[in-house]
Amino acid sequence: MAGNTFGQAFRITTAGESHGPGNVVIIDGVPPGIPLSVDDLTVDLDRRRPGQSKIVTQRSEADTPEILSGVFEGHTTGTSLAILVRNQDQRSGDYSDIKDKYRPGHADFTFDAKYGSRDYRGGGRSSARETVARVAAGAVAKKLIAEAFGGRVVGYVQQVGHVVAQVDDPAALTLDDVEKRPDGTPNIVRCPDIAAADRMVELIEECRKAGDSIGGAAEIVATGAPPGLGEPVFDKLKADLAKALFSLPAVLGVEYGIGFGCVTMRGSQHNDLFTAAPQTRGVSNAETDADCGSGDASSSKSPDQARHRVLSPQIVTRSNRHGGMLGGISTGMPIVLRAAVKPTSSLPTEQATVTKHGEPTTISTKGRHDPCLLPRFIPMAEAMVALTLADHWLRWRGQCAAT
Amino acid sequence: MAGNTFGQAFRITTAGESHGPGNVVIIDGVPPGIPLSVDDLTVDLDRRRPGQSKIVTQRSEADTPEILSGVFEGHTTGTSLAILVRNQDQRSGDYSDIKDKYRPGHADFTFDAKYGSRDYRGGGRSSARETVARVAAGAVAKKLIAEAFGGRVVGYVQQVGHVVAQVDDPAALTLDDVEKRPDGTPNIVRCPDIAAADRMVELIEECRKAGDSIGGAAEIVATGAPPGLGEPVFDKLKADLAKALFSLPAVLGVEYGIGFGCVTMRGSQHNDLFTAAPQTRGVSNAETDADCGSGDASSSKSPDQARHRVLSPQIVTRSNRHGGMLGGISTGMPIVLRAAVKPTSSLPTEQATVTKHGEPTTISTKGRHDPCLLPRFIPMAEAMVALTLADHWLRWRGQCAAT
Amino acid sequence: MAGNTFGQAFRITTAGESHGPGNVVIIDGVPPGIPLSVDDLTVDLDRRRPGQSKIVTQRSEADTPEILSGVFEGHTTGTSLAILVRNQDQRSGDYSDIKDKYRPGHADFTFDAKYGSRDYRGGGRSSARETVARVAAGAVAKKLIAEAFGGRVVGYVQQVGHVVAQVDDPAALTLDDVEKRPDGTPNIVRCPDIAAADRMVELIEECRKAGDSIGGAAEIVATGAPPGLGEPVFDKLKADLAKALFSLPAVLGVEYGIGFGCVTMRGSQHNDLFTAAPQTRGVSNAETDADCGSGDASSSKSPDQARHRVLSPQIVTRSNRHGGMLGGISTGMPIVLRAAVKPTSSLPTEQATVTKHGEPTTISTKGRHDPCLLPRFIPMAEAMVALTLADHWLRWRGQCAAT
Amino acid sequence: MAGNTFGQAFRITTAGESHGPGNVVIIDGVPPGIPLSVDDLTVDLDRRRPGQSKIVTQRSEADTPEILSGVFEGHTTGTSLAILVRNQDQRSGDYSDIKDKYRPGHADFTFDAKYGSRDYRGGGRSSARETVARVAAGAVAKKLIAEAFGGRVVGYVQQVGHVVAQVDDPAALTLDDVEKRPDGTPNIVRCPDIAAADRMVELIEECRKAGDSIGGAAEIVATGAPPGLGEPVFDKLKADLAKALFSLPAVLGVEYGIGFGCVTMRGSQHNDLFTAAPQTRGVSNAETDADCGSGDASSSKSPDQARHRVLSPQIVTRSNRHGGMLGGISTGMPIVLRAAVKPTSSLPTEQATVTKHGEPTTISTKGRHDPCLLPRFIPMAEAMVALTLADHWLRWRGQCAAT
Repeated sequence: MAGNTFGQAFRITTAGESHGPGNVVIIDGVPPGIPLSVDDLTVDLDRRRPGQSKIVTQRSEADTPEILSGVFEGHTTGTSLAILVRNQDQRSGDYSDIKDKYRPGHADFTFDAKYGSRDYRGGGRSSARETVARVAAGAVAKKLIAEAFGGRVVGYVQQVGHVVAQVDDPAALTLDDVEKRPDGTPNIVRCPDIAAADRMVELIEECRKAGDSIGGAAEIVATGAPPGLGEPVFDKLKADLAKALFSLPAVLGVEYGIGFGCVTMRGSQHNDLFTAAPQTRGVSNAETDADCGSGDASSSKSPDQARHRVLSPQIVTRSNRHGGMLGGISTGMPIVLRAAVKPTSSLPTEQATVTKHGEPTTISTKGRHDPCLLPRFIPMAEAMVALTLADHWLRWRGQCAAT
Repeated sequence: MAGNTFGQAFRITTAGESHGPGNVVIIDGVPPGIPLSVDDLTVDLDRRRPGQSKIVTQRSEADTPEILSGVFEGHTTGTSLAILVRNQDQRSGDYSDIKDKYRPGHADFTFDAKYGSRDYRGGGRSSARETVARVAAGAVAKKLIAEAFGGRVVGYVQQVGHVVAQVDDPAALTLDDVEKRPDGTPNIVRCPDIAAADRMVELIEECRKAGDSIGGAAEIVATGAPPGLGEPVFDKLKADLAKALFSLPAVLGVEYGIGFGCVTMRGSQHNDLFTAAPQTRGVSNAETDADCGSGDASSSKSPDQARHRVLSPQIVTRSNRHGGMLGGISTGMPIVLRAAVKPTSSLPTEQATVTKHGEPTTISTKGRHDPCLLPRFIPMAEAMVALTLADHWLRWRGQCAAT
Repeated sequence: MAGNTFGQAFRITTAGESHGPGNVVIIDGVPPGIPLSVDDLTVDLDRRRPGQSKIVTQRSEADTPEILSGVFEGHTTGTSLAILVRNQDQRSGDYSDIKDKYRPGHADFTFDAKYGSRDYRGGGRSSARETVARVAAGAVAKKLIAEAFGGRVVGYVQQVGHVVAQVDDPAALTLDDVEKRPDGTPNIVRCPDIAAADRMVELIEECRKAGDSIGGAAEIVATGAPPGLGEPVFDKLKADLAKALFSLPAVLGVEYGIGFGCVTMRGSQHNDLFTAAPQTRGVSNAETDADCGSGDASSSKSPDQARHRVLSPQIVTRSNRHGGMLGGISTGMPIVLRAAVKPTSSLPTEQATVTKHGEPTTISTKGRHDPCLLPRFIPMAEAMVALTLADHWLRWRGQCAAT
Repeated sequence: MAGNTFGQAFRITTAGESHGPGNVVIIDGVPPGIPLSVDDLTVDLDRRRPGQSKIVTQRSEADTPEILSGVFEGHTTGTSLAILVRNQDQRSGDYSDIKDKYRPGHADFTFDAKYGSRDYRGGGRSSARETVARVAAGAVAKKLIAEAFGGRVVGYVQQVGHVVAQVDDPAALTLDDVEKRPDGTPNIVRCPDIAAADRMVELIEECRKAGDSIGGAAEIVATGAPPGLGEPVFDKLKADLAKALFSLPAVLGVEYGIGFGCVTMRGSQHNDLFTAAPQTRGVSNAETDADCGSGDASSSKSPDQARHRVLSPQIVTRSNRHGGMLGGISTGMPIVLRAAVKPTSSLPTEQATVTKHGEPTTISTKGRHDPCLLPRFIPMAEAMVALTLADHWLRWRGQCAAT
């Protein structure tokens, strides 16, 4: 049944495959009057784009978006906004050798099981190519949350294999911190710990040369969100954010705040204690304890804070093991999420598998695949987080805004 | 905005608070003709019930469900099915001492921030009391999936603090394996590894006596699900299952299959290889490799398998690091999920906090709280998994069933 | 599939049958802080109640609502609000004579066709008994729209058989105008044209005595709605209002404004011309031309008008053939709807029909049925209109409110 | 809030404006394996196309659809299907004279009121141009219902001004009956009563020459639908069909079956009596009484009837005043709907109006507008009916199909 829509109030619907004419997203519920141009979309589309560096797939796609509707004279109109990104480098060559084989770790088998047939030219709808539509939509969501409450979503590669980045204050990271090295050159692995970044690149290269791939983890931090976003029961903000990230290809785990670390903790160690926010700091992401990520107050000032019901004195927590959400509702502290991303399933090395008739065979992918998914995963994950926050912001405003 | 509904085709909507008259669930989309009585509901309601053992909260609730509609002459009618569970032991005593204080780790602050006020008598809608409605609905979902495809959902406590259970074949666990000790007495911590169970109970008792609480992890396994459930993009089965579990109180992390373990793996180690299923075994959960959980073929025979498109020869994977889902769609292998549950936030020991006016104060919970949430978490988590599978089963049948 | 939910942002879900324990509604998305008590519900429940006069069914139901959740200290909390109305006079006597027969005009046959069986004790879920849940929810919606924008929904019986009421200014009608005769006694047929009301009562009595029933039409007018409610394409306000009314039992036609009268008109006759609103009048329902209904400005003053984007000078139309909606979006003029309601299908006179095996037989309803559905239809229709406006108000606020 | 989606299980989402790059629809939930090509779409797109005859707008649009996704090797894949129709003849010339004026009968004012601004180049999203996306999607729905149950949807112009068509058996009409005159030339007004058709064309021409426009009514008949489609309460088939038609521009009224004619009827006259279907006839649309439309059994044979629960003997009604739906659920009789369409609001003759600042002015539309909307309305209305039936068919199958 219809499953290509995400969100309630800020709602996206996507279509498109890896080897068809293109991918399209319709964004419904966009507030009117937001300045928007193609340039706003290309920043993140370029971060997601194949061929951007030596450690990602070399498929060549310009990924130039066309806004089909919903923008007039440089501003959103409030009606549905459609964006089309055409596919270019499809190389729909000879698929006869893989047409009937099930690639390990891929959706070939499950598509056949579900639909009775599948587009065998590269994954079809199950290809990560579809995320181009999400990233385009996410760019619109980022514009909205920045304008609405100074919201910002920044992700980075926190781990590749056994290489773990050390980042003191994830909530203070800017886009530049993630995208650029100190010398201004591109940080191709999107890890702000430069020493770790170098080792990550090395490890990815090593895997690529070995005809193998490697897993990793991403951390995504959203700052500026006011307290009050999220619904008490099913549509908890944590639940919708988890769905958002798990809906991305290759994600096998999601945690927020202290995450799985809570399993071995006692309540007395775990609880974050409330305290009054220092008067001179912003409310949304102030942090008075060093044991968890802290935001830079000036970077996430909320233009809308005057419309919130609970105002003065502002209340924060001394630490942020709760990852910015209590009872499924945002607390105003930085929202911190972590996702586990499996190693790329497509391998140039030969693997045993079966044909769709169940006969044993072997397969190897002579393709242009990412040896590690993480660098391109970052903009995808940021997009999903931004879309979720935009949705819950509008939901909050509809039900709870003071009129 | 409306956030008290879960599911698309098999859809539940709940209402109710901890200290109001009761909790109610409306289940919409239930197929007609399923045998159902109050007795079908009480099994799981009793597993969730407070006061069931010394290691859970001593609040006393009979939790007797009343079916208000949707059942006639012992069978579901196909129209909306409502179940009411009245609250009994509310003890709405004197709340003046906590009325204006924010309990650490609770939703007191976020409710005030969102709604401008809150029900201060024990959490209101944010109390885990609301899960009684989910568990009642989950019992109906369990009936449906058992009838439709021999589906079974069994969870157990896999870890409490540093005590980790060893379970060789989680997919083979029955309800009795989890609920009873070898001598037939209740397994109050719901851990089938009896040695670990004893140490868990000990640890929980120790925490309770210390005025503290402890975290843990649960593993939930669903067997019998045919390949093909789940949607390719946003409504991936893994995404909806993750949302289902994250929507439960206190869940800080969810993973499936190898989960966060994938971060340090290479593709060549990680991929599960396809193979033809042995002819003499059932299709849905056959397992030919020992490194992951395996199902007992006879216990999850699918009466509906003849209606599936991919039939013969059946195809399985040699291992189950993928946790039963590829491309977000079920493979027919056991679906294996793990959730991290934080230590109970309510503590009898004094904690620092603030009033709603931001003034420093202290708080201690003189309540009847679970020192560890895990034992009662199991039926809640099973319910959410069953609801998700029931929903995706109907969604699959609507779109993809051969007519 | 799940079809017992109405609305997006202000969303109700209902359950219950005519001969079960009761009917329940969960209202999701109610803004917090609205004063609400059981008394607010009973006004309309009493208007809908069976047994209220000699011209309606004599089934005896107190229809006392119980608020199960969502209200604390006399105000809505913002979380889901559940209301239960228990059935009392069910008379589940001997149904053996009608159990296998299909009553003409009823859903007996279609329920069997859809579900394979049905609750034969009086219609089950297809009985108009279910509307008790809608009317309870509608009372909450009326409170919301009154508070939010001075909104008011009043309906009346405009026609019974060939008796047509003359009402000069439907938009000026108050609840009292409809409910009471000039002498203060109840207006049992709910028609403010007293001469017509008397003839209607006479006609209904005549039909009842003849063992027959009679059709009619209702007009529903909503005033105070600001311009801007409704979505441009599928969720046009007119489309959602039409669905709302058509979802009620026995409705065979709906029109708004000039309605079917437009079929023979030319554009030059039909268009309503815009003009500036006189400064001294309210905006929402001002009317400068006598050919259509006009509102009393003072009775529908909008406390929220200051938050609308288009403010000064206010613009109205000189006539209201457009029934308050253009392009599917409210114009601020009175919203005027008309519904055709068929004669009651249940007749005490013998009618030919078949058994569920297709064998010819006869049937007569020895029941307590309304000889004309219109008097009790009015509160049902008002409820559906109020629910739709409440929903679109929250939808507007979420997307378009200036922050 | 998001309002550009229609349907639950077979769900379309559209975007696009009259003067933007194009219109796009994403169809979600399409069953896999349905043969589909661009040619299947062009039949109805051509019937809707501007410039097709002298009595419609002369805007020139080829309306060539591009399938962007969801079709592979000539069959639907089961994943989301996107169709793009580019705009060609936009004539985005000089709009300075109408930019600030509100056209009577149009959505100019309501868009400004809702969104704070509008696309003034011809209506933007409120233009009937958006229906091109619906018609493309409707063609896919028609394929599905034809394949699933032999379903067919045919509409015709039943009235223009005072000219009323006489059609003995609407349920027997074929596409050719509506599209072609007896001599094979196009029936440009889409009225199968040729004498009436000629008078309609004459009347439309007369209005066009007078700088005026004219209203009318359409009748839409769906045959072949099995009994059991539609939900008992809110999502009644009649309610969803009414919403479908009311969501189209210019529709002011909808009725089904006897419609508003029921207002003056008695129950004894109104009820349609059940009877066993003659053995030699098909079930879905058999008709044994001449007073209402009858289907040709052979033309709507249901390949799926064997899977329905109520089978033998088949039951029909002797007449069809109920328009094919009882209790909101299809009976298997022809579904007969009628819609009132207002005269075109755009007039070349000068009309009084105001500017957006409320100042009096005049306006005349120097455009290429339909003097009567009915001829092009037919494919739009058919599309909406087909989409609704496709949706309810999948919903029925998901919940109620025997497995």
